[in-house]
Amino acid sequence: MSGHDSSSEAPAAEDEGGRRRTAAEEARTLVSSVAVGYLATVGEEGDPWCSLVVYGPNAAGDPVLLVSTMAEHGRNLVRDPRASLAINDPSAPGDPLDRPRITLAGRVTQPAGEAAEAALDAHVAAVPGARLYAGWDDFGLWVLEVQRVRWVGGFARMDSVSREDYRAAEPDPTTPVAAKVVALLNKDHAEGLLAIARELAGARGAVSAVCTGIDRYGIDLSCTGAGQSAAARVEFDWPLAKAADVRPATVELAQRARAIQSGGS
Amino acid sequence: MSGHDSSSEAPAAEDEGGRRRTAAEEARTLVSSVAVGYLATVGEEGDPWCSLVVYGPNAAGDPVLLVSTMAEHGRNLVRDPRASLAINDPSAPGDPLDRPRITLAGRVTQPAGEAAEAALDAHVAAVPGARLYAGWDDFGLWVLEVQRVRWVGGFARMDSVSREDYRAAEPDPTTPVAAKVVALLNKDHAEGLLAIARELAGARGAVSAVCTGIDRYGIDLSCTGAGQSAAARVEFDWPLAKAADVRPATVELAQRARAIQSGGS
Repeated sequence: MSGHDSSSEAPAAEDEGGRRRTAAEEARTLVSSVAVGYLATVGEEGDPWCSLVVYGPNAAGDPVLLVSTMAEHGRNLVRDPRASLAINDPSAPGDPLDRPRITLAGRVTQPAGEAAEAALDAHVAAVPGARLYAGWDDFGLWVLEVQRVRWVGGFARMDSVSREDYRAAEPDPTTPVAAKVVALLNKDHAEGLLAIARELAGARGAVSAVCTGIDRYGIDLSCTGAGQSAAARVEFDWPLAKAADVRPATVELAQRARAIQSGGS
Repeated sequence: MSGHDSSSEAPAAEDEGGRRRTAAEEARTLVSSVAVGYLATVGEEGDPWCSLVVYGPNAAGDPVLLVSTMAEHGRNLVRDPRASLAINDPSAPGDPLDRPRITLAGRVTQPAGEAAEAALDAHVAAVPGARLYAGWDDFGLWVLEVQRVRWVGGFARMDSVSREDYRAAEPDPTTPVAAKVVALLNKDHAEGLLAIARELAGARGAVSAVCTGIDRYGIDLSCTGAGQSAAARVEFDWPLAKAADVRPATVELAQRARAIQSGGS
């Protein structure tokens, strides 16, 4: 390896880069992880109206709403199809301005026939209770056809996404289990994480490493040593295809790191 | 008391009514308890735009925003002052459609001189970190002058509130401590709650009682007995004026209930 004397070295990683989710993938992932958002609609005199809605995304990532004309936003959509839906990740702690979030803007349409059935299925998959009132007279299905997307990943991390890129992107399949695996790694696998940090992330001076995130492309670490902390990123060998791949992929990283370690440096 | 044989009686309370917060008070309380909301603004072509903002309410309950023209909603406000802010209580568990929430609609104005200082103070009181960027060139202070309010207390509990009623109402001063006192009562004061339920709420058949809420006007209980549950409400002797009044007021209720109990029935 580098031959540096690691004992007095800060853990600055050699490579904090590595493949990450695109803004379009972040947006598709967030839309699929959450079922609650705020909808901006246009009132009778062109004034904006903001209200809470629940939704389920269809296969293209377009949110499907089921709203009553008893609600102001329901009446607004009948009159003017323009709408914008803001969604944030409520599970992210800390400063709300630092929390991942998106705004989807477009126009709503009312699906008919088979499209209506598919839309209802998409809505109910995310909002199971909706099956109860789906047939009520005052409730209508609306598909928000997303025209543009604004993604904010946190402070000074943001991007705009076109309709095409948004539709083409996939939600990250590992997200439903990511938080659980992160907690497990930090609880039971501190040595494996340290080996990964030192051998695979280049944080040679690290004396401890905490996993701060997992996605289909890799894992994020916070490495500490010599009184300093640094972020590090290690990619998986290939993008994970499903949630069940996360644990074997992290085990593989730890094994690879330990093999290098015992090979000696 | 009633002379009923209480042992086989369901705990149906004699009086579930009693004074409660008005919709205007609910709205003022929620605005004061939360510092994050979603803002609907008007885009260049009249299209609605929804985005996350932080705010602090001024003395009249008008939310003060501090937003950058780098943000789409910041540019929208410069062009069109109409805006609508949706706020929900994220601490309420369960179905999001059943969660207390409000929408405030009105127009933003830019305060100047002393009004600007007061507005900045109101914002910073709720968003302490904002002092850091308050002076930056691209950030501007806006006061959303509330014209109308829509309050939803939960499923099928809703009302509209005029500007006058909204401005005249007070936030509930007990809200900052209410959840903590509820937890304490349920943890350490089960007998006191049962006495309150049986003697003051008229739930003679109750064998247990759980506190489900506290506000400046009284406490809510869920009473169980004979395999059934019922909601009950007990008012304080007068509306509480401050957070520190909550614990003495609940102690007083329990003492009064025990006095009736030992007086015998």
